[in-house]
Amino acid sequence: MRLKTLTVKIRKVKIGSGNPIAIQSMTNTDTQDAVATAKQCVELAKAGAQLIRITVNTNFAAEAVPKIRKILDKKGFRNLPLIGDFHYNGHILLEEFPLMAKTLDKYRINPGNIGKGKTCDENFKKIIGVAVKNNKPIRIGVNAGSLGKKSGKETVIKTAVKTAITSAQLAEKFGLKQNRIVLSVKMSNVPDTILAYELLAETMNKNRRLYALHIGLTEAGSGIQGIISSSAALAVLINQGIGDTIRASLTPLQKYPRTVEVEVCKTLLQALNLNSYKPTIISCPGCGRTNAKFFEHLTKEINEKIERKLPSWLKKYPKITKLKIAIMGCTVNGPGEAKNADIAISLPGKTEKKVAPVYIKGKFVKTLSGNAIAEQFIKLAEKSFKAIM
Amino acid sequence: MRLKTLTVKIRKVKIGSGNPIAIQSMTNTDTQDAVATAKQCVELAKAGAQLIRITVNTNFAAEAVPKIRKILDKKGFRNLPLIGDFHYNGHILLEEFPLMAKTLDKYRINPGNIGKGKTCDENFKKIIGVAVKNNKPIRIGVNAGSLGKKSGKETVIKTAVKTAITSAQLAEKFGLKQNRIVLSVKMSNVPDTILAYELLAETMNKNRRLYALHIGLTEAGSGIQGIISSSAALAVLINQGIGDTIRASLTPLQKYPRTVEVEVCKTLLQALNLNSYKPTIISCPGCGRTNAKFFEHLTKEINEKIERKLPSWLKKYPKITKLKIAIMGCTVNGPGEAKNADIAISLPGKTEKKVAPVYIKGKFVKTLSGNAIAEQFIKLAEKSFKAIM
Repeated sequence: MRLKTLTVKIRKVKIGSGNPIAIQSMTNTDTQDAVATAKQCVELAKAGAQLIRITVNTNFAAEAVPKIRKILDKKGFRNLPLIGDFHYNGHILLEEFPLMAKTLDKYRINPGNIGKGKTCDENFKKIIGVAVKNNKPIRIGVNAGSLGKKSGKETVIKTAVKTAITSAQLAEKFGLKQNRIVLSVKMSNVPDTILAYELLAETMNKNRRLYALHIGLTEAGSGIQGIISSSAALAVLINQGIGDTIRASLTPLQKYPRTVEVEVCKTLLQALNLNSYKPTIISCPGCGRTNAKFFEHLTKEINEKIERKLPSWLKKYPKITKLKIAIMGCTVNGPGEAKNADIAISLPGKTEKKVAPVYIKGKFVKTLSGNAIAEQFIKLAEKSFKAIM
Repeated sequence: MRLKTLTVKIRKVKIGSGNPIAIQSMTNTDTQDAVATAKQCVELAKAGAQLIRITVNTNFAAEAVPKIRKILDKKGFRNLPLIGDFHYNGHILLEEFPLMAKTLDKYRINPGNIGKGKTCDENFKKIIGVAVKNNKPIRIGVNAGSLGKKSGKETVIKTAVKTAITSAQLAEKFGLKQNRIVLSVKMSNVPDTILAYELLAETMNKNRRLYALHIGLTEAGSGIQGIISSSAALAVLINQGIGDTIRASLTPLQKYPRTVEVEVCKTLLQALNLNSYKPTIISCPGCGRTNAKFFEHLTKEINEKIERKLPSWLKKYPKITKLKIAIMGCTVNGPGEAKNADIAISLPGKTEKKVAPVYIKGKFVKTLSGNAIAEQFIKLAEKSFKAIM
């Protein structure tokens, strides 16, 4: 069951336990380059990001924010929320650049670098003051790497949770409503991230607070390592009902551009059956029973054809994202999976009759053979769309 | 806490709750081609697979099994367990090819296709008889796709769990010891897989049975989708203490060869802090504060250099797999993460002084600058190995 949290409205996007989990991402362009930043915002939004964060680290960056908004509005992304990421000088920038503060839809602040002791509280008060005045939500984003020194035996996890809760209570004291506060306690390894959010949820429960939660593994690394670690941390938390908005913090590489972090979130939410973005393809790993090369070739072709046709399919059949397509390598699980899938093809194993039966909604439709099976299969699938959706 | 299960010995590999989670994989070569199959076994073992399954589907395949074993022994893989995968004709093959039955280290059988009604029980009895005679463990591998028709309102999940438990009890009745039985209840989607194993663990608890569990998402699909779905299902279960051996059932593609499924398991176990295979690299996603191109380039170079040097490092420093290396893009979390890492570099953000401090065991060592930072960093790291490991 999902952890009960309040709905926080960020421009038109609602997060919190009554709403679907929202995907967020962050630009890595220079914010002061408004054109480049707006361009990346659009790329990320088109990939599926629902909330976009940009760093606001300098006067130039602060001045660029309204320009970025203008470009986004012009390009038709009027509803896309822009979140400002502040470290060290947030209290100064937010007060000195009121148009920036008004333009942003949410401020992310890091209690680890707002200042020390009394100064910290003063700076924090200034930020909250701007948020209250502009009626903006904030995220209190605690990060293991920017926590101050731990006191005595206290673990990083406990310190992070305590910092998040204390800061949230202080923000409330300074006039920010509970439904304007989002919390996060990111760690750079999976077990600590899980434990930190579990403790945060428990502590919120005890204190009867319902802050919406932003979850993620911070500094997950690059490539497959980053993808697997992020998926693991997010899956465990979401499965426990923790998390209202997610981010996969991946170091981009040429082979894995920035939009991959959005793809990872979409794929994960779809795998957990919490949202759907494209047909789910169920395909077996193949084994010694399978005509391995042909099977792999077919799986690849069908995947690619679907990817290519998806944009046009989506316009005609919005429900196509719920479709389950099975591509199976032999009769062991082939016909069984075919019965549960919407559209399925079960290839003949090596020792089986050389025909590939196609099933629509579990019913045998036709047998395919020859070299153009992928093409014929997609055609059969397309022909069935109207009837099954 | 890990679910308590008995230790099952498979050749020299022990699985069960007292032992580390073991990684398995399966060949997709034609088993009757003993040379090709042995070659793939070696590839998978070198990648990190600790248990290897091969399909035994025909007389020719059965005859090839002792030949595959011989090649593996000759190549120095004397301890690598070979598991036979049986469907439909396991009871015939195991009785008719006693050398095959003796050679294999474990039999995987699928209750969904052993036969129907009385015949099923008879065939099952034959298989268990061979296992008892040869003192071999079996896996009762229930698969959603090969389950028979569901009776009335019963869900696939309940049917799968009931089938697994009933079959295990029958196997015990036929003389197989509890510590020779491994169970699995794989489904082709993440939520059902999680629920099925949770119900299986609960049912085992109620019945006071301690069967070791093989976990995985079946037919996970290909590419990133398969990797994310597998990671999600496995992470949630392992985090609950469920699972003694794992497989990622990925459809191979040219870009993702068969060994990727082993890499996925290794990466996941390392992410969950359950095992370590190579240094962990913590790197931030970068943002508008970061010198994006330089940061990405450096991360890529350091990752590649480590990958290249790892085999020789491992020989000299076996503990290198526990190493934590942080590559951070700016001062927000850079110095903080550096304190927790064994070796770290914190790059200057755009507005920061153009120097990259290096930390060893949290202590500042040296500042790097210029174009050869990656190389210099690796050299500094190598120089420190002796002292820190």
